[in-house]
Amino acid sequence: MKVMGVEDGWKVINKMQVRGAPAIAIVGCLSLAIELLNNNTTEKKIMRQEIEGKLNYLVSARPTAVNIKLAAEALLNLANSLNADENVSVEAFKERFITSIESMLKKDIEDNKAIGTFGCEAILNTLKCDGQVTVLTHCNTGSLATAGYGTALGVIRSLFESNKLEHVYCTETRPYNQGARLTAYELVHEKIPATLIVDSMVAALMHARKITAVVVGADRVAANGDTANKIGTYQIAIVAKHHNVPFYVAAPSTSIDISIASGDKIKIEERPEKEMTHIGEYRIAAPGIACWNPSFDVTPAALITGIITEKGVYAPDTVMKVMSC
Amino acid sequence: MKVMGVEDGWKVINKMQVRGAPAIAIVGCLSLAIELLNNNTTEKKIMRQEIEGKLNYLVSARPTAVNIKLAAEALLNLANSLNADENVSVEAFKERFITSIESMLKKDIEDNKAIGTFGCEAILNTLKCDGQVTVLTHCNTGSLATAGYGTALGVIRSLFESNKLEHVYCTETRPYNQGARLTAYELVHEKIPATLIVDSMVAALMHARKITAVVVGADRVAANGDTANKIGTYQIAIVAKHHNVPFYVAAPSTSIDISIASGDKIKIEERPEKEMTHIGEYRIAAPGIACWNPSFDVTPAALITGIITEKGVYAPDTVMKVMSC
Repeated sequence: MKVMGVEDGWKVINKMQVRGAPAIAIVGCLSLAIELLNNNTTEKKIMRQEIEGKLNYLVSARPTAVNIKLAAEALLNLANSLNADENVSVEAFKERFITSIESMLKKDIEDNKAIGTFGCEAILNTLKCDGQVTVLTHCNTGSLATAGYGTALGVIRSLFESNKLEHVYCTETRPYNQGARLTAYELVHEKIPATLIVDSMVAALMHARKITAVVVGADRVAANGDTANKIGTYQIAIVAKHHNVPFYVAAPSTSIDISIASGDKIKIEERPEKEMTHIGEYRIAAPGIACWNPSFDVTPAALITGIITEKGVYAPDTVMKVMSC
Repeated sequence: MKVMGVEDGWKVINKMQVRGAPAIAIVGCLSLAIELLNNNTTEKKIMRQEIEGKLNYLVSARPTAVNIKLAAEALLNLANSLNADENVSVEAFKERFITSIESMLKKDIEDNKAIGTFGCEAILNTLKCDGQVTVLTHCNTGSLATAGYGTALGVIRSLFESNKLEHVYCTETRPYNQGARLTAYELVHEKIPATLIVDSMVAALMHARKITAVVVGADRVAANGDTANKIGTYQIAIVAKHHNVPFYVAAPSTSIDISIASGDKIKIEERPEKEMTHIGEYRIAAPGIACWNPSFDVTPAALITGIITEKGVYAPDTVMKVMSC
């Protein structure tokens, strides 16, 4: 689907044709930029009003990811100040606004590369001696979830590029199979040594093989370090704790929502039953069975070893410090 | 498929058209009974030899379930003694041997009903006050996995019949979806209030809702109480422990293999990758990705609250006592 404006942007996000918290923010804002390019408003005040309305609309497409909410807040602040500045013409307003959105793309990739470097270092530091690591990841946090490179998958890319990655295991990530479809695709494409497991095999895997660390992404990190991420993340964190495997969250600082004190305040999106009962149009569950389909869960800070951001790795209870860096 | 003899019996078990440890034993032995009905051997010695060979063949169809192995041992002992007894004609040998197999069907249902009653009592005893319970189960252990009624699902049926069941959650049970297909079917069919979740939601469920207990089946219980069951069981046991939810295994005493000291000695079957990468002929995983597909895992005795058998409920480290009852 070609995205021609915010209505298309909202749809591709809501229907999960674009997913992954950083990609949601970027695609949403780019859909606004496209719309503004075709906007012939001659009054800055009206342009500002339209921007505010459209940003609110875009944020409503998926409730759990925070990045688009923070991006919308920053863009609204920019629109307000451009509107207030009498030296800025309506054309300059438009141009500077669109340039600001375009720069988000570049910054996301730069941030991901920094996350990759910090994460690679943190995981190698857990090794008692020199050697290669084996990591497990969940869902998709790669090029298909960000502007490029990836967050958790960026860490894995960085380990691979440093010749320090022995193997990566990725979970299927039911019910939407982002692991089996997207992460597996990226890993095969880049020839990274990888094996797919179903979500219920994590404990058996940690018992059978040495896993150096788990690294996952985040949709929203609360001020106390509690982390909302793809359903199943909390379960993996419990299982990692049981096996003494370090558990890392990799996310840009824009995933940290200091307005939310703790994880129980994060709104968890519940999605249609059909995602669980069907593969495409093919029904895989017995007719008539009820389903519970939360898209995310919250991993308490106590189960997280470190939060890897573009500014460094933070213990979850010190994640607020990232905001002052 | 119509089962005409042990070759057909082996195939339906190996291809998982029949699954569930008790059902495997019964269908395997019944396939031998059918073959014997059409056997015109006039010598008991030859009949005994044929029985031994065919039992060994049947046991090889799936390596992890123990019930068929123990049933085969018992039937071989019977064949040996009928062969040795000079007062038994070849016709009487055949008749008594077939009758013995037929009685396994009846005994399995009786055992399951006893398991249901003991399990129901044990789970209700965990309640601090009078009320209803909410339980979680994994895989399928019902009428479609046994001769009838079921083991873990027998406990759930018994709770429902006693009007003590508030709700049951069943896991999808990837990669073969026995929960979504079979357990969900049985629950809908019997109008038992039930909700399907994907395997990765167990921790989120235990955090969000009060789960009274987990009850699962077993493919093989070692002498120390370690239990091999459907992949994902070990993970659920860890998550249950983390949330202080009692974790029960329901299995007939024929699932207990006293010849195996502990779980690490249980052979775990690995099945074809296609079970994970495809739904029917539809590919759901990225082409080229490697898979790990163990069908079972081992839950250590320390994570099990009790083993519910037809003779009573045993602490896992005392499960050997069941053999002397």
